[in-house]
Amino acid sequence: MNEKMLPPIAIELTKSPKARPPADKLGFGKYYTDHMFIMDYDTDRGWHEPRIVPYQPITLDPSAKVFHYGQTVFEGLKAYPTADGRILLFRPRKNAERLNRSNERLSMPTLDEEIVLEGLKQLVKIDRDWIPNEPGTSLYIRPFVIATESALGVAPSREYKFMIILSPVGMYYAGGMKPISIFVESKYVRAVEGGVGTAKTAGNYAASLKAQEEAARLGCDQVLWLDGVQRKYVEEVGSMNVFFRIGDKVVTPALNGSFLAGVTRDSVIQMLRHWEVPLEERAITIDEIVQAYREGRLTEIFGTGTAAVISPVGELCWHGERMKVGNGSAGELSARIYDTLTGIQTGKLEDPFDWTIAIDGAE
Amino acid sequence: MNEKMLPPIAIELTKSPKARPPADKLGFGKYYTDHMFIMDYDTDRGWHEPRIVPYQPITLDPSAKVFHYGQTVFEGLKAYPTADGRILLFRPRKNAERLNRSNERLSMPTLDEEIVLEGLKQLVKIDRDWIPNEPGTSLYIRPFVIATESALGVAPSREYKFMIILSPVGMYYAGGMKPISIFVESKYVRAVEGGVGTAKTAGNYAASLKAQEEAARLGCDQVLWLDGVQRKYVEEVGSMNVFFRIGDKVVTPALNGSFLAGVTRDSVIQMLRHWEVPLEERAITIDEIVQAYREGRLTEIFGTGTAAVISPVGELCWHGERMKVGNGSAGELSARIYDTLTGIQTGKLEDPFDWTIAIDGAE
Repeated sequence: MNEKMLPPIAIELTKSPKARPPADKLGFGKYYTDHMFIMDYDTDRGWHEPRIVPYQPITLDPSAKVFHYGQTVFEGLKAYPTADGRILLFRPRKNAERLNRSNERLSMPTLDEEIVLEGLKQLVKIDRDWIPNEPGTSLYIRPFVIATESALGVAPSREYKFMIILSPVGMYYAGGMKPISIFVESKYVRAVEGGVGTAKTAGNYAASLKAQEEAARLGCDQVLWLDGVQRKYVEEVGSMNVFFRIGDKVVTPALNGSFLAGVTRDSVIQMLRHWEVPLEERAITIDEIVQAYREGRLTEIFGTGTAAVISPVGELCWHGERMKVGNGSAGELSARIYDTLTGIQTGKLEDPFDWTIAIDGAE
Repeated sequence: MNEKMLPPIAIELTKSPKARPPADKLGFGKYYTDHMFIMDYDTDRGWHEPRIVPYQPITLDPSAKVFHYGQTVFEGLKAYPTADGRILLFRPRKNAERLNRSNERLSMPTLDEEIVLEGLKQLVKIDRDWIPNEPGTSLYIRPFVIATESALGVAPSREYKFMIILSPVGMYYAGGMKPISIFVESKYVRAVEGGVGTAKTAGNYAASLKAQEEAARLGCDQVLWLDGVQRKYVEEVGSMNVFFRIGDKVVTPALNGSFLAGVTRDSVIQMLRHWEVPLEERAITIDEIVQAYREGRLTEIFGTGTAAVISPVGELCWHGERMKVGNGSAGELSARIYDTLTGIQTGKLEDPFDWTIAIDGAE
């Protein structure tokens, strides 16, 4: 229910639609649809000229601030087709809100969340025939803001571009729901309290690559990040939030100001509470995890995030030891969460949480 | 002495040279010269096609990795004109080496340092008539690398651009050598050991803006960063290294893996040793600084960096107290270092350290 007058979104349709990629070649973030949303900001006019245009390169001065001082934030969410021909978005308001929290942390101008949502809906509607239909596929939506002012002084940019691009995607991990192996990182740190770890901003991802490379060299798929102060509390796995099933409980790190408050994380928490599965959101040390493993009480680990939804973890690599968790396929709870979440996302299952929004319908 | 064969640098000169900005309007990083250096990388060909072309915008796909995951590193150095018509670079090899250390930390491909230096020299030579002559002015040189691959998976880019742009600059601070006021930051953290604080990468600067804004609101010019773990050790001031004159000694934080190893910092250390000024490179707490202030032994504070060279600090804001340091103008040692360093940089003084390289001459 939006009572405000939104500025009209100008629409210019492409004259040369691209060929659709084959569904089995989609991968993640390799193909982009025919159109994009764009809106400009400067300190005089604020955000202005929302428009949908043919997908096209952007042209910036080499001194544009995004290239030098990294003022950029982004979001990720997905649109899913339903069996009865509708298109569902999953909790897009949460992404619009977080985009603004990220903007604030990075000293960037906030956006009218209604325009973000309206731009996103109109764009998805225009490119709706790009949404793939095969199991595990979806249309990934990437809203992002970049600092575009041409100036080398270290200070917040006075000009920005907000854009939304769309990418038809397959499963995030080529191996599907096959459990991944994670390396417990004790050398590198992703973020620390007081830093930008809670913002979805480029620098956090750049900072994670080296650890990821070294983990891959040791045969691990992802990194389990520990806190940067005491190096003992578990924070995230790769760029996902993380959950541990220990005995009859599920434990996940409480939001502590150094990692991202994931939308999927929040959804999993609500779902577990709905199911009356005992859940603890609290600080959890790697030592507690290892001890639970030794006592045979660590039965499942899984990561949560928009790209992979649920990513079961089958192995922890810690101090040279490889600790197997589960039996080599997704754990019972991980699978149940995945099936329920994707069922709701694709409209196959009832949505008791009111999470989905149909593109054409009222909220 | 370079025995390697360097690939030839293709040169395309501009047909429409720009008007030169007036010397009193230069500011910092607001104007760019007529040409730029550019070189491309992909995983198949490595770095290729070094070229100097007219200064021009760059065109990237909206999904280019630099916009999303922040893989970008940069450097900053200066070219100075001498009274006898030569052009001097100040320790450019240090910048080329650090650029590669940054590349490594960010999982980016390293560059042949000879090509970096050769590209930089040829570019400055071509745009030599852009170098301003007035006291305090110089030609700022900004080499940088950005990730250009069009792909949204979180992984190192497989394509990059290395560029060098030039900007004629005035004094970094509009107030010249007027001492600045610094706010001792206890809420925000810039970087932590294990993170990317030692790399010259965009994310570190993005992470610093919010604290800088809040400090400015309290009437302070810059932020003094404390360590992210114990929140008591002094690290940097703004984006400069920091030195304290306490009693008959100078103290500067030892390199600890969470802040940048500045070229100016290293030069100041060598200069102080050459002058036989007692110098300590070690961990130093904010409590020690405050105590020295209370006892009247804290006589000078200054920041060091390429942009400002030496930036005297006249005030520390800590827990609501404003502690005055010095008498409102640059301290005696700060001024001596500034005069000597800029004297060497501009060829006015002898260079006992072999720091400067003439653009046309042999090293």
